[in-house]
Amino acid sequence: MQDDLNVIIEQARYLIGSGQVAQYIPALANVSPDYLGIAIYTVGGDLYCAGDAHQNFSIQSISKVFSLAQAVSIDDTLMWTRIGQEPSGCAFNSMVQLELEHGRPRNPFINAGALVVCDILHSQYATPSLSMRDFVRQLSGNASIFSDQLVSESEYQFRSRNAAMAYLMQSLGNFENDVDAVLRTYFHQCALTMSCVDISKAFGFLANQGKSPLDGRTVLSPLQSKQINALLATCGLYDEAGSFAYRVGLPAKSGVGGGILAIAPGRFSACVWSPELNQAGNSLAGIKALEILSETFNCSVF
Amino acid sequence: MQDDLNVIIEQARYLIGSGQVAQYIPALANVSPDYLGIAIYTVGGDLYCAGDAHQNFSIQSISKVFSLAQAVSIDDTLMWTRIGQEPSGCAFNSMVQLELEHGRPRNPFINAGALVVCDILHSQYATPSLSMRDFVRQLSGNASIFSDQLVSESEYQFRSRNAAMAYLMQSLGNFENDVDAVLRTYFHQCALTMSCVDISKAFGFLANQGKSPLDGRTVLSPLQSKQINALLATCGLYDEAGSFAYRVGLPAKSGVGGGILAIAPGRFSACVWSPELNQAGNSLAGIKALEILSETFNCSVF
Amino acid sequence: MQDDLNVIIEQARYLIGSGQVAQYIPALANVSPDYLGIAIYTVGGDLYCAGDAHQNFSIQSISKVFSLAQAVSIDDTLMWTRIGQEPSGCAFNSMVQLELEHGRPRNPFINAGALVVCDILHSQYATPSLSMRDFVRQLSGNASIFSDQLVSESEYQFRSRNAAMAYLMQSLGNFENDVDAVLRTYFHQCALTMSCVDISKAFGFLANQGKSPLDGRTVLSPLQSKQINALLATCGLYDEAGSFAYRVGLPAKSGVGGGILAIAPGRFSACVWSPELNQAGNSLAGIKALEILSETFNCSVF
Amino acid sequence: MQDDLNVIIEQARYLIGSGQVAQYIPALANVSPDYLGIAIYTVGGDLYCAGDAHQNFSIQSISKVFSLAQAVSIDDTLMWTRIGQEPSGCAFNSMVQLELEHGRPRNPFINAGALVVCDILHSQYATPSLSMRDFVRQLSGNASIFSDQLVSESEYQFRSRNAAMAYLMQSLGNFENDVDAVLRTYFHQCALTMSCVDISKAFGFLANQGKSPLDGRTVLSPLQSKQINALLATCGLYDEAGSFAYRVGLPAKSGVGGGILAIAPGRFSACVWSPELNQAGNSLAGIKALEILSETFNCSVF
Repeated sequence: MQDDLNVIIEQARYLIGSGQVAQYIPALANVSPDYLGIAIYTVGGDLYCAGDAHQNFSIQSISKVFSLAQAVSIDDTLMWTRIGQEPSGCAFNSMVQLELEHGRPRNPFINAGALVVCDILHSQYATPSLSMRDFVRQLSGNASIFSDQLVSESEYQFRSRNAAMAYLMQSLGNFENDVDAVLRTYFHQCALTMSCVDISKAFGFLANQGKSPLDGRTVLSPLQSKQINALLATCGLYDEAGSFAYRVGLPAKSGVGGGILAIAPGRFSACVWSPELNQAGNSLAGIKALEILSETFNCSVF
Repeated sequence: MQDDLNVIIEQARYLIGSGQVAQYIPALANVSPDYLGIAIYTVGGDLYCAGDAHQNFSIQSISKVFSLAQAVSIDDTLMWTRIGQEPSGCAFNSMVQLELEHGRPRNPFINAGALVVCDILHSQYATPSLSMRDFVRQLSGNASIFSDQLVSESEYQFRSRNAAMAYLMQSLGNFENDVDAVLRTYFHQCALTMSCVDISKAFGFLANQGKSPLDGRTVLSPLQSKQINALLATCGLYDEAGSFAYRVGLPAKSGVGGGILAIAPGRFSACVWSPELNQAGNSLAGIKALEILSETFNCSVF
Repeated sequence: MQDDLNVIIEQARYLIGSGQVAQYIPALANVSPDYLGIAIYTVGGDLYCAGDAHQNFSIQSISKVFSLAQAVSIDDTLMWTRIGQEPSGCAFNSMVQLELEHGRPRNPFINAGALVVCDILHSQYATPSLSMRDFVRQLSGNASIFSDQLVSESEYQFRSRNAAMAYLMQSLGNFENDVDAVLRTYFHQCALTMSCVDISKAFGFLANQGKSPLDGRTVLSPLQSKQINALLATCGLYDEAGSFAYRVGLPAKSGVGGGILAIAPGRFSACVWSPELNQAGNSLAGIKALEILSETFNCSVF
Repeated sequence: MQDDLNVIIEQARYLIGSGQVAQYIPALANVSPDYLGIAIYTVGGDLYCAGDAHQNFSIQSISKVFSLAQAVSIDDTLMWTRIGQEPSGCAFNSMVQLELEHGRPRNPFINAGALVVCDILHSQYATPSLSMRDFVRQLSGNASIFSDQLVSESEYQFRSRNAAMAYLMQSLGNFENDVDAVLRTYFHQCALTMSCVDISKAFGFLANQGKSPLDGRTVLSPLQSKQINALLATCGLYDEAGSFAYRVGLPAKSGVGGGILAIAPGRFSACVWSPELNQAGNSLAGIKALEILSETFNCSVF
């Protein structure tokens, strides 16, 4: 498996140079485009890595899977009155659909949906940022994970689109807490800094019916775990989810930092990282690597 | 397995009476709401049935999987310049999105996409309706399958929405053949009359890496078969695809006649039928039956 | 006044070469871009002309004012249940809005609205095309006006967008007659061939409280005449109506053949013609000429 | 004329009870629905009143005409790169169109447009709220006009929709100043408290080619005055502008407080007030009164 990962990395590397590193905040724009890493964590607890798998990066929207898991572990029923389970058929930050659908985000992985999840956590926890950080540290078995304040400050400074969505939802009755406070927490989550190794380990429970291969802890029930994988499969890659299913066939979640989490249920969790993005905002070489991985290990769920 | 199917049927039956049989054409509106059937066809070639599994019904949009398979078997590259691979995030017959996206349908399973597939087949075959009928007869091993002319005539009479979509695509340069002729073929396909048994057998190849368990014939390549399953998983149930993945976790395609095809890759193809539809236009008891089936046989792909 | 018209024409002529003649059908694309004409017909019955005022051209959407006047003369109440009175805020042929607003066109001057007006006339007249032709002949006092069959055939051949709109309205219950027959009549009206002189004379009644200055005949009531002028002012130039009001300040209707009808209530009706269009599909030099005319004669209604 | 106004008021009064007073903030919801007043201020400087013409009310969106006039007096060219001149074809607070049109509001009278105007004034004036208040005091000749802090605070508290629009425009590069500060100024303007008499006098310049009949001061050029009237005619009553032109035929601006300003160019400015609104958010009895006034004085511009 180790050899396979090395090969996969090298076969995807040619795409570096054809995408573009996220530009909307300086802290992300300055990342070297040359990084490329992958890690696989099996349900048996084995870890395989290649490339820059130990290098930290900004997890960005991959954090939406942490916050969803945390919210689901509190209540997996009520939240669905406020958030849908359908692909959006729109860009990740579209307000058109949000208004036409009366402020109910289509799913928890578009920004509007993640903001509602964050709003739910705000109503639950006194210090939601710390609760999230501790949740992530425990899941990954890495107590040194932190949120990069430079990144979260920068995100806050360029918050206008996310602020617009949150205020729109508030105006439509789907936001409970102070918009500014929730945005702060949201950016704190997005600015968590982790490696491929951290991420693959942290999400082992999604490949293992809800139970962490790391410490045997039950994070979610088997059914909840399947449900999150289903949402990842249909909504995890924004407006490229269908094409990703077509090419790769694994539940997955991308982040604008260039990371992609992918789950092979019953087998392993994986994380690939390459900072350059395609037009849909997903890691260009990352998707390619996962496409090769899916063929190599014959692990498409379809 | 036989006993399980009997139990599944009975556990889903309570929903009959809570949905509504499709009303838009008399030929469908007159179907008795009391039918409920299921059939499973394994990759080993075993058939299991329960309820009204041998009763014929109008396959309607399940035909879109036949036409896509036929089109893919001719050319699985060029067609994607004209049709997308993404969930629509809209109703099955929305024109808003079609105009905003310049006449390129989001996927082959919404009506606009299926009309383009039909247009492609028109450019290939001299008698596309007959080619389709023969393709379906061979796949299902049932030489008596026919298209109900009463239904197709009625669909043609009430063609206005589909005609509007086809003309809009023509005006945007994404339609090659005469609109009226393509509509005739399209309605002919939708009016094919089959049973759960026929459908489960016909789509065995999607559970079996492209090879028909019936006669060992290679219908599609393993990769093509996975790709169609991926499209079914993300786009097969219109604007309920996400929720269906969440609840059932199988690639599937519904029809307004109340049938649902579902694929458990590597294990079996299934078809359930109950004419009453939910608000999203999918069989109400049919989805419930598949939800129970997915739990019973632990066959969610997630 | 004659001298003023000569000056106006010359001051607007510099714009010829900066626009583009309508390209969507050959019969229009072949018109020389060099034509430029203007005619003014006063409520006292005086006619002033300059440039190519006697040259015939395809009136295209200016015909929508004829058909609306004809429909209003039959019934000015019921029709407004099927058509709105509001500017569209969209392109003249948008289907997005038409679907979102359930098949009720925003106003009678966008294509969808004119198609409904045409549908209304179809329910009234046995031979709506002839009725319209005779109505136009009488209004203009020119018995030789005809519809150019080459143009209407060509429009029919490229009917897809208009067909799409008509079928969409039919699917939403806002179309009574056979779509194809109504389209034929609609294109017949659009293909009427008239000169600036003909058009200015024909619409004298709108400047004269509903009474034709030509023969004293009452075409509409004073109130109906004002109402049509109001609709022209807010909806007559598609998605450039606001800008036209800002620059010119007269009720007006443009056609893709390059003609623009403008009304100075209580004073005169005018028609300008220059085939090259701006990006909004309105005559580029024509709008400029009307802007100068409005200043010269101080006739903005604002 | 005085008698006419008394009659007009009484003929419109029957509609009181059929509309609904604005409910979105308590300060407006508590206004008695029974008020009905009208004032006319002629270009000769004569004032005519009837009903509650001297009673103060919250001018709300009528303030958008003040801010536009102030902005136009500074620069009537550059601002149109940031704001359109077209009717919106949408509700006054739609975000759908704002996103589809890349953050450029359709016109200065929808909320998004007025926020940009306010942003422009923020870039011009050190204390924009005071500048506006003084501008209004001078125009109306009433030095005691003030902004109701209870109302503006309440508007700020329920700012979410306006905040969403401002942030969306900021994210799309069409907002220069701090969103929160501009919102404060905007609500301050909306909360100005004036009577029908104040408003009719203040806008006399729009009926008088830009020159105030009160003190002869030139507020705007004749052309600028016409241009604002044109914008009022096509965009002044939100998504009821077309119907208002059809029924009344005067440039006008409504406010959610129940006031409507109307201009009869060359003759008079008028203000009517009745707090109950119709479904489009415009004063129900107010529109009726203006419809009768238009007939009575034969002052439709069409």
